[in-house]
Amino acid sequence: VTRLPLHPAAPLPSGPDRFVSPGGRPGRPSVWVVGGTGYSGLEAVRLLRTHPAFRLARIFASPGSPERDLAEIDPGLAPGQARALPWSPALLEEGAERPDAALLALPDEASADLAPRLLAHGIRVVDLSSVFRPKSAGAASPPTPGNDQDPVYGLTEWEAARIASARLVANPGCYATACLLALLPLERAGLLDPGEAVVVDGKSGITGAGRRLEADYLFAEANENCRPYSPLAHRHLPEIRAVLGLAAERPLLFVPHVLPVSRGLMTTVYVRLARGVASGEIAAAFDHAYAAAPAVRLLGSGRWPQLRGVTGTGRCDIGWTADPVQRAAVVVSALDNLLKGAAGQAVQNLNLLFGRPREEGIPL
Amino acid sequence: VTRLPLHPAAPLPSGPDRFVSPGGRPGRPSVWVVGGTGYSGLEAVRLLRTHPAFRLARIFASPGSPERDLAEIDPGLAPGQARALPWSPALLEEGAERPDAALLALPDEASADLAPRLLAHGIRVVDLSSVFRPKSAGAASPPTPGNDQDPVYGLTEWEAARIASARLVANPGCYATACLLALLPLERAGLLDPGEAVVVDGKSGITGAGRRLEADYLFAEANENCRPYSPLAHRHLPEIRAVLGLAAERPLLFVPHVLPVSRGLMTTVYVRLARGVASGEIAAAFDHAYAAAPAVRLLGSGRWPQLRGVTGTGRCDIGWTADPVQRAAVVVSALDNLLKGAAGQAVQNLNLLFGRPREEGIPL
Amino acid sequence: VTRLPLHPAAPLPSGPDRFVSPGGRPGRPSVWVVGGTGYSGLEAVRLLRTHPAFRLARIFASPGSPERDLAEIDPGLAPGQARALPWSPALLEEGAERPDAALLALPDEASADLAPRLLAHGIRVVDLSSVFRPKSAGAASPPTPGNDQDPVYGLTEWEAARIASARLVANPGCYATACLLALLPLERAGLLDPGEAVVVDGKSGITGAGRRLEADYLFAEANENCRPYSPLAHRHLPEIRAVLGLAAERPLLFVPHVLPVSRGLMTTVYVRLARGVASGEIAAAFDHAYAAAPAVRLLGSGRWPQLRGVTGTGRCDIGWTADPVQRAAVVVSALDNLLKGAAGQAVQNLNLLFGRPREEGIPL
Amino acid sequence: VTRLPLHPAAPLPSGPDRFVSPGGRPGRPSVWVVGGTGYSGLEAVRLLRTHPAFRLARIFASPGSPERDLAEIDPGLAPGQARALPWSPALLEEGAERPDAALLALPDEASADLAPRLLAHGIRVVDLSSVFRPKSAGAASPPTPGNDQDPVYGLTEWEAARIASARLVANPGCYATACLLALLPLERAGLLDPGEAVVVDGKSGITGAGRRLEADYLFAEANENCRPYSPLAHRHLPEIRAVLGLAAERPLLFVPHVLPVSRGLMTTVYVRLARGVASGEIAAAFDHAYAAAPAVRLLGSGRWPQLRGVTGTGRCDIGWTADPVQRAAVVVSALDNLLKGAAGQAVQNLNLLFGRPREEGIPL
Repeated sequence: VTRLPLHPAAPLPSGPDRFVSPGGRPGRPSVWVVGGTGYSGLEAVRLLRTHPAFRLARIFASPGSPERDLAEIDPGLAPGQARALPWSPALLEEGAERPDAALLALPDEASADLAPRLLAHGIRVVDLSSVFRPKSAGAASPPTPGNDQDPVYGLTEWEAARIASARLVANPGCYATACLLALLPLERAGLLDPGEAVVVDGKSGITGAGRRLEADYLFAEANENCRPYSPLAHRHLPEIRAVLGLAAERPLLFVPHVLPVSRGLMTTVYVRLARGVASGEIAAAFDHAYAAAPAVRLLGSGRWPQLRGVTGTGRCDIGWTADPVQRAAVVVSALDNLLKGAAGQAVQNLNLLFGRPREEGIPL
Repeated sequence: VTRLPLHPAAPLPSGPDRFVSPGGRPGRPSVWVVGGTGYSGLEAVRLLRTHPAFRLARIFASPGSPERDLAEIDPGLAPGQARALPWSPALLEEGAERPDAALLALPDEASADLAPRLLAHGIRVVDLSSVFRPKSAGAASPPTPGNDQDPVYGLTEWEAARIASARLVANPGCYATACLLALLPLERAGLLDPGEAVVVDGKSGITGAGRRLEADYLFAEANENCRPYSPLAHRHLPEIRAVLGLAAERPLLFVPHVLPVSRGLMTTVYVRLARGVASGEIAAAFDHAYAAAPAVRLLGSGRWPQLRGVTGTGRCDIGWTADPVQRAAVVVSALDNLLKGAAGQAVQNLNLLFGRPREEGIPL
Repeated sequence: VTRLPLHPAAPLPSGPDRFVSPGGRPGRPSVWVVGGTGYSGLEAVRLLRTHPAFRLARIFASPGSPERDLAEIDPGLAPGQARALPWSPALLEEGAERPDAALLALPDEASADLAPRLLAHGIRVVDLSSVFRPKSAGAASPPTPGNDQDPVYGLTEWEAARIASARLVANPGCYATACLLALLPLERAGLLDPGEAVVVDGKSGITGAGRRLEADYLFAEANENCRPYSPLAHRHLPEIRAVLGLAAERPLLFVPHVLPVSRGLMTTVYVRLARGVASGEIAAAFDHAYAAAPAVRLLGSGRWPQLRGVTGTGRCDIGWTADPVQRAAVVVSALDNLLKGAAGQAVQNLNLLFGRPREEGIPL
Repeated sequence: VTRLPLHPAAPLPSGPDRFVSPGGRPGRPSVWVVGGTGYSGLEAVRLLRTHPAFRLARIFASPGSPERDLAEIDPGLAPGQARALPWSPALLEEGAERPDAALLALPDEASADLAPRLLAHGIRVVDLSSVFRPKSAGAASPPTPGNDQDPVYGLTEWEAARIASARLVANPGCYATACLLALLPLERAGLLDPGEAVVVDGKSGITGAGRRLEADYLFAEANENCRPYSPLAHRHLPEIRAVLGLAAERPLLFVPHVLPVSRGLMTTVYVRLARGVASGEIAAAFDHAYAAAPAVRLLGSGRWPQLRGVTGTGRCDIGWTADPVQRAAVVVSALDNLLKGAAGQAVQNLNLLFGRPREEGIPL
């Protein structure tokens, strides 16, 4: 079980570009995006095409998929403007062409196969699949590609120091990001009653499910609708549980729901407070955790996030309220599932890997 | 504090029309709708215009509002097809014209004023405001218009017998309906751990807020959005608490959210189970409560309601799952906030008041 | 080229049920729906399940498709409540089971194959594909299954008399219905300038494209979007041209667009008027055409249809305005593409075939 | 009647910042936004806050409106981050504070009053109201504030040279922009049949109507809906007619429709071509007009714009097809009504006024 540090506020990397590429030539680090035809991969392409510090060297389709013009997927692109090339393992042998880093937006199995090969060639990896993320005690451990190549969990605001020196970053799931950013400050500050259940009600736009050609994601099925999925059994649960460090006997009840919106994700977190916790302690815990984190915006007590406040941004908004009579608190966090919940956080982590200002190139 | 009976399955009124109107003439009972220009009132008008057993005698605007052609509000109506007349207290003096029942879709104050006047003239009242609903211990008691005219709580599936002989029915709130239909079977069957919090996460379409000319309800503000409102402090909370009969020290945490859909409401209820509760007991409790209730559809364990399954119907769909390891259960209920959550349940109650089949005239 | 009669107002069939089924037994005609898993077929199932005059004997999947529980498609149905059976040609040999009529909601090729087989067994057919509809001069003629079995075009309000004695009804396309109901009264009354182009701008909800698993119909692609498709080349164009009886040299420009709504279709028709046409002549032409047509609602000059006024109904709403200075008129028609544009009109035609009141069983 | 030049492709201003502010001090020109609480004004604020070449000095509410925190309107802003101050005429007397330019997003009357006062103090004005735009022959002329202060029509791609030396720019309406960018190349190249009607079918998201607290703009009214408004009588018609330079007897038929989307606008333009026009001439006319215009993207023949391709950008996308048999063409243009249709084009014009690269600070 991974334990995150209590104090996230380690000094953030910044200052002048200290990157020198492996071959010794200074310059902008080059990045590949592999899996650039899914919603998250495409969002990463959008961010990296205009990023001032990186050079988006190549975009690849998922291994096994054919070449594709991204204009077919993104009507904002002109034909020929950006292509996802077919992936070939031989590419790694072309030494001169190898990138400094790769961002993988792939299914679990494809990431499990590809990441170690990239790492073996000295390419740093930010992986958006769930395969390298922490699992709770009961679940299988993530594969460990090598000694100094253990995956670091890429929850940017909590792991900045470790990410900066990582080779492989396991980018968190979108629900895990929203939920952990809301819960970690309270849990690490000891404000929660350790004997009580934690309840997380999730709501996500449809891109959270990826670009799947399934009937449930057709407009006429999803429009004017809302439905729960995988109640109490969502695949992000072990990740949340592990990172939160919950005792095995502590209930964590999580039900995500699909909303009829394209982008945006919200978690409404219900907790019981430890005896004697004053309302101000909650605010203090959030302030302590995120005072130096531009990508987390604390709205404060009694002010509430809404999806419209975060879609299109790489930010997570957090609001809360406490009820001393019931010894309870509600925390609501909202983010754009494709940005802070996926590609935005991936670029934060790339920035950390190469010593760039953490939020460079990310709309806030 | 109102206590509902444990066993709701009292024989339902049915059989031939036993109604004889007060003046002695047999025939279809006549009904007024007062407040027919709001979303709920308009929905009641729609149901009563085609109801086989009632005569929609007149439609009135809210007291103080001018006459209005309903075609201005409902583009499905032709001009002149249905008008909301201006309300005048003098109307009650016109004896021959008085209806057998009135359905009030009014603000609390207007209902508090009007209902006793109607009752005094022998007119039975189904009131959609919150003013006559049960309140929890701490809150002010509802006004009691008179001896045998105490309001009966109109949660149809649980109070059928008392509603049938009532003079004044306090129709439940939309959130209260969804939440109570999900929770009452478990609570009354003693399946919940009495020492644990009950968490209710609510999601509702925009008509749940009424036809308010406020910026938050403009298309461009509500579209592609989701936001919580009144976390831990919603006005339906005392009603839910009172009807559920929760002990004062038992936490009930409720946060409703506005969804970008026109109609439909869902509650996701998180509970801890008493020790030793078997999964089958949950199914049995639901079956026992709703076996004879056509307007509640039990989807069963592991099958989940969605808004599209209930919008346009007077039905509430319920699904659930239990997690024995965490001693927890999740129940999800969904309904159309304007039908089962308002006008549909009001018509169920009108049917009961006049001895009609309970779901007559209601789309299921 | 089919020519519709100038005066549609032939007396409509009505009165008592004059149906005697082929085998001589009186009773409710039995109907099969073949292709009940698409949006149109499912809508036909909905209408026929509650139709007072027909018995929905069986529902079939498209030939070649497996059996399917309709509850998987329509969350308003309970599991087991309605199943689409696998189609087998052998079914037609089971004499006792053969229905009085069949409603086909199939791809063109499947209809072209199946309809003649059904007709050969004396089963009347209402076909929703385009295969039996009129084509303009240049296009291939529709197949003619047999002598007295020539297809009759099922534009209910204009072909009632011929439909009543038909064996095979070619149900119009959704765009053709909206466009022809708007244009035929003006064209047949000679109010249009025969030397000028007719422009039809169409807008349709997403179910107009059927339940296709294509990326364009995914929620995240269609939401917050609008796009034209097949400009000047839509597959309904020959049908519209042929029925309207436009001279070959007369331009008919038609561009449909996909709207981000589930249901509903609108055509905005721009025409130049013949010299000397007075505004009142337009109103008179519409009144003449539709005075006895409950499923067409004339809103009148300067009053405009909107989708919300027609979705969920079997009605077409029409409004118009004329500009004498520019010698021009605009007519806007709106309907529910799955009802008046498909299954609703099919049931109107079934009613005509069996001597029922034309709008029986259709929500207006 | 304003006549635009046939050849828009005058060399665009560019190069180093040649701006010296009136007081003689070099630096970034300062800009006021007046009317910053409407959708267009707020969008201008968003663009100018991050514009590299301008300093957004102050934001004002509409004259007569109270001070307002923009965070109340835009949930992406933090409280206190941006305020719309109350307007006071006395502000113009504070010489030192006067800006170099003002962008007015106001009702017509307020602009008619305020613009001359600003001009009198040497402040350049980009006005988003319709009051200074060209009118067709029949309509009242726009007010002319002074000799060298005649308003210049701000259709950027066609009036770049005149805008660059203007004092007062009348920013085009959103529909006028989309429609003129589609039609001007064909009309000015003489490709249209001068004896035939021009038909423009418009579709716009709801922000096109401004932030009006009217029932039609409530979510539950606009959602799942589409309706025409002001058919043949829209207030942008005289502007389009005048700029296009249509002969009085040439019909121009325009019907806009409201779509259930927040942002985005599309015009579908139907024209008849002059005899002998080859398909390639259309492409050539578009290429000639927009070869040097980065904010107009030509998709080419048979490729079609969609709203999703332009929302969030300051670009207009154009596609077309011609039908030689019918001697007809369809042109479809799409833009974001708040960007290229309002604030984006206003900033293009500000750039021109101060010698900046024309698309600086605008998302493309």
